[in-house]
Amino acid sequence: MRILQIQAHVYEEKEKNLDALEAKINEYKDQKMDLVTIGEMFDCPYQTDRFPLYAETEQEATWSRLSSIAAKFGVYLSAGSVPEKDDKGHIYNTAYVFDRQGRQIAKHRKVHFFDVDIDGGQHFHESDTLTAGNECTTFDTEFGKMGLCICFDCRFPEFVRLMALEGAKVILVPAAFNMSTGPAHWELMLRSRGMDNQCFVVATSDARDEKASYVSWGHSMVVSPWGSIVSEMDEKVCAKVIDIDLREVENIRRQLPLMTARREDVYELKKRVKQ
Amino acid sequence: MRILQIQAHVYEEKEKNLDALEAKINEYKDQKMDLVTIGEMFDCPYQTDRFPLYAETEQEATWSRLSSIAAKFGVYLSAGSVPEKDDKGHIYNTAYVFDRQGRQIAKHRKVHFFDVDIDGGQHFHESDTLTAGNECTTFDTEFGKMGLCICFDCRFPEFVRLMALEGAKVILVPAAFNMSTGPAHWELMLRSRGMDNQCFVVATSDARDEKASYVSWGHSMVVSPWGSIVSEMDEKVCAKVIDIDLREVENIRRQLPLMTARREDVYELKKRVKQ
Repeated sequence: MRILQIQAHVYEEKEKNLDALEAKINEYKDQKMDLVTIGEMFDCPYQTDRFPLYAETEQEATWSRLSSIAAKFGVYLSAGSVPEKDDKGHIYNTAYVFDRQGRQIAKHRKVHFFDVDIDGGQHFHESDTLTAGNECTTFDTEFGKMGLCICFDCRFPEFVRLMALEGAKVILVPAAFNMSTGPAHWELMLRSRGMDNQCFVVATSDARDEKASYVSWGHSMVVSPWGSIVSEMDEKVCAKVIDIDLREVENIRRQLPLMTARREDVYELKKRVKQ
Repeated sequence: MRILQIQAHVYEEKEKNLDALEAKINEYKDQKMDLVTIGEMFDCPYQTDRFPLYAETEQEATWSRLSSIAAKFGVYLSAGSVPEKDDKGHIYNTAYVFDRQGRQIAKHRKVHFFDVDIDGGQHFHESDTLTAGNECTTFDTEFGKMGLCICFDCRFPEFVRLMALEGAKVILVPAAFNMSTGPAHWELMLRSRGMDNQCFVVATSDARDEKASYVSWGHSMVVSPWGSIVSEMDEKVCAKVIDIDLREVENIRRQLPLMTARREDVYELKKRVKQ
């Protein structure tokens, strides 16, 4: 499977981000990409007060444009995340995935909120303007099942584990760690999720912008089912073609059978059934 | 809390390992240690065919000696793990913890078995001679609650998470990774367990013995609730005094509230109730 991972600059102008995405994919169009990924809130400055201003409903202009881009280039498009609003006026941090025909095949609303106050470091309260999603998201592709979560969702090992238990061989993580947690935890978290669940992790960040109110760590990364780094970017704007072989998942699981050595008679991890 | 972490050589003679443990603690007796830790199967060569030969029941000579050592030095003793047999002839990989009076305050039988066949690497089948435990183990001390698991148990993020959810601020891990998984996963696993659960991880290995049938990776390590390395040994025989401040747990959890940001309405992780 060939991935085009795009670590983009986030412009103030929403449409400019979509234009840039399309232009970047166009540059690589002869490379037989299967999947294109981009970062969290790639079309909106990462500020809680902007989310309501930039938000659109599903099927609106941004969604349609993303769908068209996927269809135009015939790729799976994990369209980072964007602010989404529903008809009740709630705002979500939402990740869409489109297939090669531009059909939406997954939608994940960020479940865990990043509300932190690090001494001498990052302060941020997503829950000021956002509403949380309630789903663990997996979906089928021609390459097998994949999981999808957004940034802080990936902090929760039980949440990522649920995706792996549902059969995900690749976990997509549009994300934007910051300058406090990035150097401390970004690589450690991604590599451990890959190692523990013996699956690929494709984590795509926005590029760092020192002038932004929220400064992203960058360092978009692809991790193998052995927990090793397949590809890593630095903090700058970057696009990279990365080939992964999904047979590696079965190969690693055969040698070190973590998934089957779980003791489901001792502990139980499951999704809550909605009332 | 002051820890004496002992990465010891494993002698063929069971008693010699106990003598060495006592002698080593004696060397440090003026240092006001609170907790002493040692490695997995510290009194028995790490070979499945040896476990039945070295196994004793609880309360037998090895257990009594360990209890006496804890009481003699007035320390909490996480006595690595030893082969234990029960009255039905089952053999377990068992970790005992004794308090300052030599009373057993925790007993953990390894729950997850290390049965692996890494291509060109480690082959080992613990389940050939061992029976698995069925409990997630936490216990109280004057410093607060601690969790206890053995080596491969720590591979399972949901299992360690359960200990943290029960209130463990320190996870004790007598262990012996090998020359395949050690360099690839030892540090990554321990640091991620600390980071995800925002607790200390005290992982104590046996020293490397190139002549042994199973060659241990060594690298005993203490990890902070921020996921950083507080102390790390190399592969050689070593003992080290390490001070940790358990207030760090609350401090980190206040700044980055991972434990309370869990979405228990979306997923559920719990121990199975025994029938």
